[in-house]
Amino acid sequence: MSTQISEIQLLNDIRPLIIDVDAAGVNELLQHHRPEDIAEIFWNLELDEAKFLIKVIDKEKAVEVIRSLDEELQERLFKGYDAKEIAEDVVAYLDSDDSVDILNLLPTQKAEEVLSYLDDQDYAKNLAAMLHYADDIAGGLMAKELVQVKHNWTVSQCIEEIRKQAEEVESVHAVYTVDEKNILKGVVSLKDIVLAKAHTSVIEITNTEFISVNAYATGEEVARLMSKYDLITVPVVDSMNRLIGRITIDDVVDFIREEAGKDFQLQAGLSESVESEDKVLILSRARLPWLMVGLIGGLGSSMLVSNFEGDISRLPQIAFFMPVVAAMGGNAGVQSSAIIVQGLANNTLKSKNIIPKLGKEFTVSLINGLACSAILLLFNVILGHGYDLSMVVSIALITVIIFASLLGTITPLLLVRLKIDPALATGPFITTTNDVIGLGVYFLLGRLLLGTF
Amino acid sequence: MSTQISEIQLLNDIRPLIIDVDAAGVNELLQHHRPEDIAEIFWNLELDEAKFLIKVIDKEKAVEVIRSLDEELQERLFKGYDAKEIAEDVVAYLDSDDSVDILNLLPTQKAEEVLSYLDDQDYAKNLAAMLHYADDIAGGLMAKELVQVKHNWTVSQCIEEIRKQAEEVESVHAVYTVDEKNILKGVVSLKDIVLAKAHTSVIEITNTEFISVNAYATGEEVARLMSKYDLITVPVVDSMNRLIGRITIDDVVDFIREEAGKDFQLQAGLSESVESEDKVLILSRARLPWLMVGLIGGLGSSMLVSNFEGDISRLPQIAFFMPVVAAMGGNAGVQSSAIIVQGLANNTLKSKNIIPKLGKEFTVSLINGLACSAILLLFNVILGHGYDLSMVVSIALITVIIFASLLGTITPLLLVRLKIDPALATGPFITTTNDVIGLGVYFLLGRLLLGTF
Repeated sequence: MSTQISEIQLLNDIRPLIIDVDAAGVNELLQHHRPEDIAEIFWNLELDEAKFLIKVIDKEKAVEVIRSLDEELQERLFKGYDAKEIAEDVVAYLDSDDSVDILNLLPTQKAEEVLSYLDDQDYAKNLAAMLHYADDIAGGLMAKELVQVKHNWTVSQCIEEIRKQAEEVESVHAVYTVDEKNILKGVVSLKDIVLAKAHTSVIEITNTEFISVNAYATGEEVARLMSKYDLITVPVVDSMNRLIGRITIDDVVDFIREEAGKDFQLQAGLSESVESEDKVLILSRARLPWLMVGLIGGLGSSMLVSNFEGDISRLPQIAFFMPVVAAMGGNAGVQSSAIIVQGLANNTLKSKNIIPKLGKEFTVSLINGLACSAILLLFNVILGHGYDLSMVVSIALITVIIFASLLGTITPLLLVRLKIDPALATGPFITTTNDVIGLGVYFLLGRLLLGTF
Repeated sequence: MSTQISEIQLLNDIRPLIIDVDAAGVNELLQHHRPEDIAEIFWNLELDEAKFLIKVIDKEKAVEVIRSLDEELQERLFKGYDAKEIAEDVVAYLDSDDSVDILNLLPTQKAEEVLSYLDDQDYAKNLAAMLHYADDIAGGLMAKELVQVKHNWTVSQCIEEIRKQAEEVESVHAVYTVDEKNILKGVVSLKDIVLAKAHTSVIEITNTEFISVNAYATGEEVARLMSKYDLITVPVVDSMNRLIGRITIDDVVDFIREEAGKDFQLQAGLSESVESEDKVLILSRARLPWLMVGLIGGLGSSMLVSNFEGDISRLPQIAFFMPVVAAMGGNAGVQSSAIIVQGLANNTLKSKNIIPKLGKEFTVSLINGLACSAILLLFNVILGHGYDLSMVVSIALITVIIFASLLGTITPLLLVRLKIDPALATGPFITTTNDVIGLGVYFLLGRLLLGTF
């Protein structure tokens, strides 16, 4: 909340300065604001205002502001810039990973044009090479900026190299050692460089049992490795084991958050990652597939129920409890599957043995089913729905809760064996299946137990 | 997958060595395995085997293995150790943050006993102080191990201090400067220390515009700051601004993942974070509250439907389509609310203006509602359910999808204004509400449009 208050404050302060075209005033106001905070107010600026701000802020800081903007805002902003401006005023100042992110936002032709305007054509070539990697694999997450030294150098040569590259590589956490063919040999921590004597050979302080990732490793794999081994940075190599970049943990943090959001989406029945700011057709497209699955399930339910038309006309009251039986099956099933899916995602579910899990799930769902059924029975008897029907509804409810819970436990474990994303099991798929099965159980029990049927 | 294969391989290789009580063999086998990988096989070891392994592995590595174990495994393992062993063989070798995590797993009395057995009583006092912080606030996430220097020192004094503390502080990313009262003055990057001349004053290379967090800041707040400002470490201060610890990003990565899981849980109708390994009663307790909410909603539905008893007995076919109408309302509502909830969680939802969002949501849901209704109509006409009823069902379906989508959009936005976690809106709450409303709309439309009613 405090961020939002200071954001509104900043907006109120800056608006009049922008209107007065007061460049000096803007700079003075923004002097003690971090680029990340300045970026926040861009949501509330018109394109003209945004361009003015970027133009008058100190160049280094302006580029940091652009880097910190949400992708949507970057895209909007860059529509107001031509390729030459993007090249000379933005990309030339950014690290390669941030530049690639920006180039990926532009239409292909404009991106190529931007590269052609870069003074540093080596950098342009690097960027062009990096654009070949998808943005969710190691090659797409990495930055080219790193300090690399020959593995047979001394510490003082190494420090000299850090000094040379200090301008370009803003944050240095480790130095990578390579041989004459650029093959990655080891990692040296900055701490060991600080503590070593100047004439020490780098080999002596090199860690050769380091972890590296291939450029085509998935973002999930990189995130898993970095968090398992508590890595701050990880070197990226090509198939020949040549050093081509490095990934820092902050780029993976965003990835972890996005990944964690994906299960949430699947569970909500969204087939792709969408934001409420997306276009109507994109929103519709992300939602329609699972609605269709729900629809087909619903049609299945109605075909099933139609088999009991006679029973319903003889005892219409049986229809009253269809919603509660169907809904409770869905709820219990989603709960069970969510626990398994999250266990799989967090790697906390170590034993994938189905049988003991089912035993436990049976106990849990029996307890919860009994509790719910007892309340339902009480309610029905009080409302005078007839003892027979009330019993049928309550027995159906226990049965459905137990059945749905077991199904919710089995489904994700089976999906993961079939190498299908188990989070699918928590979505409309399991709710729908449980709807159909729950109603089937309910009506069959009714026919079995009620003399009138 | 590959991890799992190597894990099974390692287990198969190590089992005979454990049976033969072959300490040398175990050590040779594990020489090239990382502690994090060795920790994985503990899931499949008996307590005796685990204790043997810890005993024979090289002490430094054994402690790293213990540190990497899942909490559940740590808890299980420590039941086999007395307080003296935990103090002298484990806690004495660990960083303070990892030690505190372990002490938190022990019964209070045993934890205090462990502290009393520590040789280094300063360390014991530090740990005791850290135990006062909850494990989800900055004080509970921080480690005491850091390099701090006086702000008026020179770079060479600073390097001397790093050398002195090098043993204790394993990974150094930054050095913190404090005044004589231990008040935090600034942060110096290791890179700048490497590049500075020995007689330079530390003040010259100190960044005084650093970010710090208070010991009582929530884990969410720390995670938000570290990912917003791309921080690798952040210093922790007390209310007097005295430096008391630092948090590294790897501890926050776990936190971010847990946090991201919370929305997923709420949406799945789990009232607390549970794992399938938890006890039956804990699992039951986490699930019962939302099942009860669903039950109450279901009872609402059945009371509502009971008002249409006459209609159902006159036209039992109307009951066939209750499940599809109710389910689709739930599905559409969850989709809409999930998009808003995720937007709020990711901070990508900048404008919280309800009106324009509703306009867009109306269009999206109209498109999807029309598509679903058209298919349903086609299906019903083919199956010969009668044109009138088919039309009622389809019109009800569009209405319900639109209504549920709008409700799904409004609810989280209202909840956030009331300072209630908006993720509540994606859970059983919205499904249940939409069940009731959907069925109401359906039966009313039926009565309105069908002459037979």
